[in-house]
Amino acid sequence: ADAKAGAEKITVCAACHGMDGQSSAPIYPNLAGQSATYLELALKAYRAGERSGGMSAVMTPQATNLTDEDIADMAAYYSQQ
Amino acid sequence: ADAKAGAEKITVCAACHGMDGQSSAPIYPNLAGQSATYLELALKAYRAGERSGGMSAVMTPQATNLTDEDIADMAAYYSQQ
Repeated sequence: ADAKAGAEKITVCAACHGMDGQSSAPIYPNLAGQSATYLELALKAYRAGERSGGMSAVMTPQATNLTDEDIADMAAYYSQQ
Repeated sequence: ADAKAGAEKITVCAACHGMDGQSSAPIYPNLAGQSATYLELALKAYRAGERSGGMSAVMTPQATNLTDEDIADMAAYYSQQ
């Protein structure tokens, strides 16, 4: 996983979750300080269609386009914020 | 929402998420510092059966037994950690 590469991949994420992992509104989770392991699991759950309701209408389509490497890089980035 | 009441209700949660909202293993999300709004949404999504995969086999049965007041109290507690 490459956090620097992740920083280049989180432009869309940052609209809600912030560049620094502090979300822009209370309905969105902060990602700063989460483990990369958990962040990967959550993104992969969205990608697999395992989360419905909530913000899944936004998250599932976003996650669908991500490779495992993308997810690892983005998780590395946010876990280090 | 009553964070002090929440503190009495999170005994089971704390096994994985910690009394202080710092999880006991990287597969579990930290809850400290999340907004109460997000924590309520996540618990209600589990309660509604909207999350599968991941740790939902644990979370869904736990959430099923919670009232809206329980969820509000527990979310208040963890959001203040």
